[in-house]
Amino acid sequence: MRPSISALILNGKQLAADVLKTIPSQVQGQKLFLAVVLVGNNPSSLIYVSNKMKTANRLGIETMLFHFEEDASLEDLLSEIETLNADPAVTGILVQLPLPQSINPRELLDMVDPLKDVDGLHPFNMGMLYEGDENSALIPCTPQGCIHLIESSGVSIEGKKALVMGRSLIVGKPLSLMLSSRGATVTLAHSKTRDLQKEIESAQILISAIGNPGLIKGDWIQEGAVVIDVGISKLDSGQLKGDVEFETAKERAFAITPVPGGVGPMTVAYLMKNILKANKLQQMSER
Amino acid sequence: MRPSISALILNGKQLAADVLKTIPSQVQGQKLFLAVVLVGNNPSSLIYVSNKMKTANRLGIETMLFHFEEDASLEDLLSEIETLNADPAVTGILVQLPLPQSINPRELLDMVDPLKDVDGLHPFNMGMLYEGDENSALIPCTPQGCIHLIESSGVSIEGKKALVMGRSLIVGKPLSLMLSSRGATVTLAHSKTRDLQKEIESAQILISAIGNPGLIKGDWIQEGAVVIDVGISKLDSGQLKGDVEFETAKERAFAITPVPGGVGPMTVAYLMKNILKANKLQQMSER
Repeated sequence: MRPSISALILNGKQLAADVLKTIPSQVQGQKLFLAVVLVGNNPSSLIYVSNKMKTANRLGIETMLFHFEEDASLEDLLSEIETLNADPAVTGILVQLPLPQSINPRELLDMVDPLKDVDGLHPFNMGMLYEGDENSALIPCTPQGCIHLIESSGVSIEGKKALVMGRSLIVGKPLSLMLSSRGATVTLAHSKTRDLQKEIESAQILISAIGNPGLIKGDWIQEGAVVIDVGISKLDSGQLKGDVEFETAKERAFAITPVPGGVGPMTVAYLMKNILKANKLQQMSER
Repeated sequence: MRPSISALILNGKQLAADVLKTIPSQVQGQKLFLAVVLVGNNPSSLIYVSNKMKTANRLGIETMLFHFEEDASLEDLLSEIETLNADPAVTGILVQLPLPQSINPRELLDMVDPLKDVDGLHPFNMGMLYEGDENSALIPCTPQGCIHLIESSGVSIEGKKALVMGRSLIVGKPLSLMLSSRGATVTLAHSKTRDLQKEIESAQILISAIGNPGLIKGDWIQEGAVVIDVGISKLDSGQLKGDVEFETAKERAFAITPVPGGVGPMTVAYLMKNILKANKLQQMSER
């Protein structure tokens, strides 16, 4: 066994940079275009959207922000999405979540052309992921980033006991399917889970996507586990904090992501990969 | 705690009869029609198909068997499915699985009109189930039967620790989603799972859909668990046997399904319910 040294820190910033480095050569000669639909002025959303667009531009992917007022009508939003669907110059369409309460996100997400659905939230793409056909589908970015982070630790997923906390369509559910496809025995936990500590103690791979800062105590982590912290919450002090007590957890984990600088940058990197994949799937469907 | 008495036996035959009793009054006045596509002469498939058709007929639902030779071409099968899709007299289309090895089941299943897909295996229906929208989707019959059996025991699913063994699209995956939607903490186990006994020992609700007779020893069952045995294997002696050692398991479980007479009849009953639901969804989509 490993002596009691601190965990391998899974540097998402560096890994994401490595992923992004491979992109310009794949873009070259092609006109790729990401359309971002943003409704309202959620401060976090503004930052996320700006990050995504800047990263795309830096790689030679064009972007445009379709920024609607908080009280935009569903009709106006749907009509914009139809225009973007029909425009052959548009490679990817991203509807930034969350949407204002008055809008049912499904009404928009279901309308995005599945081949331009770079967030992987159209039923067609979710259905393919559920079937286990990852190659033909556009898959949510964050779970792809999580898998990459786990694999970068050198730990094999097959046969491991994995715990995914949070059953959202953007992280928890797709990630649990992807881990299961790769041979992990996956438990999906959520707000109704009773003995969370016990579940965490038995997990060799732990992914938390709850958004409750410090919920997971360091001494609950199984010795030698791989810990991926998708949660990111802003404390009153302004500090960003994950779901896991990082300082104590890293004394027990084999590998752990920091917050920030772990999952976040990987999500953006996989968005870029999804734009390339969307382009490829569109070319294949035209044949 | 309950004294050491034998488990409640979840009588699927009786429960299925109760479900079926409610159907003729819902059928009345409507012409419902189930088309069954069978390829080859797998003896179990012949029995299953005959059971399904007899049950439907008894309830006033018309049926027709489209029986193809083992070496039928994909083109012929697809053309039959297209004809059935286009025929407004056809309410439900069931492609009996397994298909011969030469045919990729997805090529057929993806072609069935989602509104006639009474086995719930079209990507559109699977996507809706994955999203958590059970009302608008046609859902595989066996998982629906399993949920009904669990609920019939009086045990509430919410907050329970459930283990689903087997990750098929027809049982394990949909059932794990349905249990999760109902608030269980679900673990999905499969052939790569390492310490199966330990997983079983911690399960308050156990569903096995492996097809390995007697794989699960009675003394692995948690005291007071609800045990649903989807496995059904024919021994050399001709006897039908489930995945769970029934005689010993029933001394520990709170409730358990027998094999046969447990899940099997419920699957047929929910097929009938799916035909009614398909009819309703078709009427709604016509409006």
